[in-house]
Amino acid sequence: MNKITKRKVESFITERKKDSYKGTYGRVLLVGGNENMGGAIILSASACVHSGAGLVTVATDPSNHAALHSRLPEAMCLPLYDLQQLESMIDGMDVIVVGPGLGRDQRAADVMKTVYETIDEEQILVLDGDAIHLHVNENLPPLKAELIVTPHLGEWRTLTGVPIDDQDVELNHQKVKELNAVVVLKKSRTEVYYEDEVWENTAGNPAMATGGMGDTLAGMIAGFVAQFEHKKHAVLASVYLHSYIGDELARHQYVTLPTHIIEQIPETMKTFAKYDSGKRFV
Amino acid sequence: MNKITKRKVESFITERKKDSYKGTYGRVLLVGGNENMGGAIILSASACVHSGAGLVTVATDPSNHAALHSRLPEAMCLPLYDLQQLESMIDGMDVIVVGPGLGRDQRAADVMKTVYETIDEEQILVLDGDAIHLHVNENLPPLKAELIVTPHLGEWRTLTGVPIDDQDVELNHQKVKELNAVVVLKKSRTEVYYEDEVWENTAGNPAMATGGMGDTLAGMIAGFVAQFEHKKHAVLASVYLHSYIGDELARHQYVTLPTHIIEQIPETMKTFAKYDSGKRFV
Amino acid sequence: MNKITKRKVESFITERKKDSYKGTYGRVLLVGGNENMGGAIILSASACVHSGAGLVTVATDPSNHAALHSRLPEAMCLPLYDLQQLESMIDGMDVIVVGPGLGRDQRAADVMKTVYETIDEEQILVLDGDAIHLHVNENLPPLKAELIVTPHLGEWRTLTGVPIDDQDVELNHQKVKELNAVVVLKKSRTEVYYEDEVWENTAGNPAMATGGMGDTLAGMIAGFVAQFEHKKHAVLASVYLHSYIGDELARHQYVTLPTHIIEQIPETMKTFAKYDSGKRFV
Amino acid sequence: MNKITKRKVESFITERKKDSYKGTYGRVLLVGGNENMGGAIILSASACVHSGAGLVTVATDPSNHAALHSRLPEAMCLPLYDLQQLESMIDGMDVIVVGPGLGRDQRAADVMKTVYETIDEEQILVLDGDAIHLHVNENLPPLKAELIVTPHLGEWRTLTGVPIDDQDVELNHQKVKELNAVVVLKKSRTEVYYEDEVWENTAGNPAMATGGMGDTLAGMIAGFVAQFEHKKHAVLASVYLHSYIGDELARHQYVTLPTHIIEQIPETMKTFAKYDSGKRFV
Repeated sequence: MNKITKRKVESFITERKKDSYKGTYGRVLLVGGNENMGGAIILSASACVHSGAGLVTVATDPSNHAALHSRLPEAMCLPLYDLQQLESMIDGMDVIVVGPGLGRDQRAADVMKTVYETIDEEQILVLDGDAIHLHVNENLPPLKAELIVTPHLGEWRTLTGVPIDDQDVELNHQKVKELNAVVVLKKSRTEVYYEDEVWENTAGNPAMATGGMGDTLAGMIAGFVAQFEHKKHAVLASVYLHSYIGDELARHQYVTLPTHIIEQIPETMKTFAKYDSGKRFV
Repeated sequence: MNKITKRKVESFITERKKDSYKGTYGRVLLVGGNENMGGAIILSASACVHSGAGLVTVATDPSNHAALHSRLPEAMCLPLYDLQQLESMIDGMDVIVVGPGLGRDQRAADVMKTVYETIDEEQILVLDGDAIHLHVNENLPPLKAELIVTPHLGEWRTLTGVPIDDQDVELNHQKVKELNAVVVLKKSRTEVYYEDEVWENTAGNPAMATGGMGDTLAGMIAGFVAQFEHKKHAVLASVYLHSYIGDELARHQYVTLPTHIIEQIPETMKTFAKYDSGKRFV
Repeated sequence: MNKITKRKVESFITERKKDSYKGTYGRVLLVGGNENMGGAIILSASACVHSGAGLVTVATDPSNHAALHSRLPEAMCLPLYDLQQLESMIDGMDVIVVGPGLGRDQRAADVMKTVYETIDEEQILVLDGDAIHLHVNENLPPLKAELIVTPHLGEWRTLTGVPIDDQDVELNHQKVKELNAVVVLKKSRTEVYYEDEVWENTAGNPAMATGGMGDTLAGMIAGFVAQFEHKKHAVLASVYLHSYIGDELARHQYVTLPTHIIEQIPETMKTFAKYDSGKRFV
Repeated sequence: MNKITKRKVESFITERKKDSYKGTYGRVLLVGGNENMGGAIILSASACVHSGAGLVTVATDPSNHAALHSRLPEAMCLPLYDLQQLESMIDGMDVIVVGPGLGRDQRAADVMKTVYETIDEEQILVLDGDAIHLHVNENLPPLKAELIVTPHLGEWRTLTGVPIDDQDVELNHQKVKELNAVVVLKKSRTEVYYEDEVWENTAGNPAMATGGMGDTLAGMIAGFVAQFEHKKHAVLASVYLHSYIGDELARHQYVTLPTHIIEQIPETMKTFAKYDSGKRFV
């Protein structure tokens, strides 16, 4: 098993090019947040914007629009259950995240169906939280997009049928191949299954054990994948950085909240971008 | 009367365990905030999240959902007067706080009845503010849960019938036993009645005499009780820390607002966790 | 004309007493903020809370409740045009501010009538902005409360009929006596007319020339009057401190926003409270 | 082509006059933000307020009012599609910004028509984003106001019909004269076409390539034009300062968000105002 280390991630976060514009850094749509769980998608979207995605749009219940704009005026929004708007919005996107705070009711399933019907092979789909449950339990159209899934252990059991106690790297790897996806398996030392490789996160701590951390990670993954050309590097870097910031904050905080993590993303990415793989500070 | 001191509280706030996850730190439901008093429950919930509770949900009037998510995307919410949703939400909780900004009308009484009917003996109920009034004046079902009550002097009179001028430690203690509850009696030097013991807070100052401080304390108590195994230590630590932060802030602020207190919880807990009972800085 | 100086204001801001509680620092109701001008009453209320008022309630259009709670969970609210709720809320208050963002339409006039009918001689009424216009142009019941008015030069002309170019201290003083009010006449060097005395503010600068500054001052005046026993000292101190903070901020900011001023109130009051009149730092 | 340099901009940002009041610094109306794109107009308005405009009002969809007031209580608002309110509000304004988040539907076109019919030759109109599209594609009344347009390369093509690859300074300049406007052509090195002059921005970096940056610039331009007498200096200064702050932030941030830029405006303007053109620090 490979280790995701600081040195490697420093080489993954490359400097931005001089003549780039916001389109260079990708368009991301985040889909989630029913009327009771709007905070989840707000955290995801905030993480995505702070990670440097070019343009971020959020499909969420209209009751969440005021809170979203209040925290994050950088994002656009659309009403979650307006499937027609959703469909035409998906068209122009590079990355779509579905799941944070989505719920598991019929309306959520209809949203999932619209996403699966509309998304195509040049787009990347990140499945998180409730969307993993719906992926398994709803009768969805075949998926054409590239897939990244971010289950915790219980969701991984839902996806694979393998009880938590029986899950090990080898069996997981086999299931990942059947799923034909990149899998970010969240645990105290998160594992990334990327094609034939397995990577273990070397950062993270129990001060991060609090609600919303997974939503935050999903948003970071989307933001990194949208802007960095090398998809594997993007996934590994976002997983590591999320935990690395948590470790830094935990030196002074008993608990580190998702919003604390999010605020630190731009500065932390900068410190990583200053190094390249072979030598130290440039 | 025992004194709650810094040294003791340092021994109560223990380091988090390595392989823990958010479930380890408890699920808390906060119930309150009618359409005029949403700020109260937002303060309670914020205090609870910043104290390190694993997962926090807020049952409050829908008109408060936008403000709640705007300040605290880490929390989930549900509509306060939807008794069916409330009932099924209570089921999975470790700690339930009822009262901040709840009001005293019939709808509030119906909420209380639902909580009393649903909650069971393995759960902890924190009663604050208006809920104390309703506890006395409404015809509620017998309560199965463990009870923590956080009255100020006037609410203690309502609970016990003892006029403020006649309240003393001995009489209070007797009334506490009749009530069969942990009582946090809020005054300039707050007293905690815990089974056979009485503890006096040694921190606190008049810069904290401002609206919302009690709501904040209720949220902290819930957050501490949810995550620390030793309930007595959790209550004493939260009472002390709330005032300790207030004392630290009052060195530089003429008035210390609840939101100021809340922001300081994660860092202050960390400084306390660095010490253990016998020796100084580890 | 007397000068309001730093030394004097240091003697006006006294330390809080040890056994005080939030009731000691007064109850303030702020009335204003129609559906287009909610920001004004939010600024007033924030200034009032940060000044140390014990308990702050805001009567404003319901469309402003979410933004109010989002910025200031410390405040309670009620719907501006529910005259019955307004009437019963006024009863328990020490100070009532009317005007910021109130508008001048019939509904605003009805609110004013309710305030004038309900308020009694032991309460203090602060009239600001649109309420000054309504005070002059509406047929209101006789006012029993003590009155503080905070006009700018144009509003003072509306109140007195004296053209701006003819306004001078002597004529102003005569008009103040006819009005039977404390008058805070806002200009580049604000003047306070208090009974037989006239005080000139010695602080303030053009970086403060921006929307919402007057609303902020009205909230500070209410907060100070609510908590300090000596009303004259309270008015003079709030007028000075508002400008003093502006001066401090203007050393580093080209424009100082009301929200910047508000944030600095608790710390600035503390530095003033550390001094007493005769000697320096205690 | 002239260069916009730090030295020049330091001479453009002059100290405020002693006896000024908020009216001295202009009244600005910002028009935009439909129900899906409220963040854009919130960013514009925030930039405008932080730039020092005297009084700022925002015509936006009512669903955005809560988020606007929550982030920026300094601004007033009115409902975007109430054309009668819009018309009477335009009357008292010095500068009107139309476009951020406006959308391109019929309702947006009706808003544009109302602005074009109402605005007169003594007012300044800033056209941004969707308003540029509507300016070209809708049958609007002749415009009497002075015009500032802020297109990016694609919008400039829409305005002029010139393909991006054929755009050069000479051809652009000719098109600018036909348009009879000040043009801020946004690109990695932004160009300002002002009458017979062309100015090139010397600041800016790819960390600023993120959604909402253009909305922020439009708000800054409006704020500067409203308060500074010399219109050319105001436009050049706002374009430069927007990028200069971005450069300062990018020293420590991998991506710089619009809200980060906005927060730094008051302090950065102050550092510029401390210098005058001939000598260094005054």
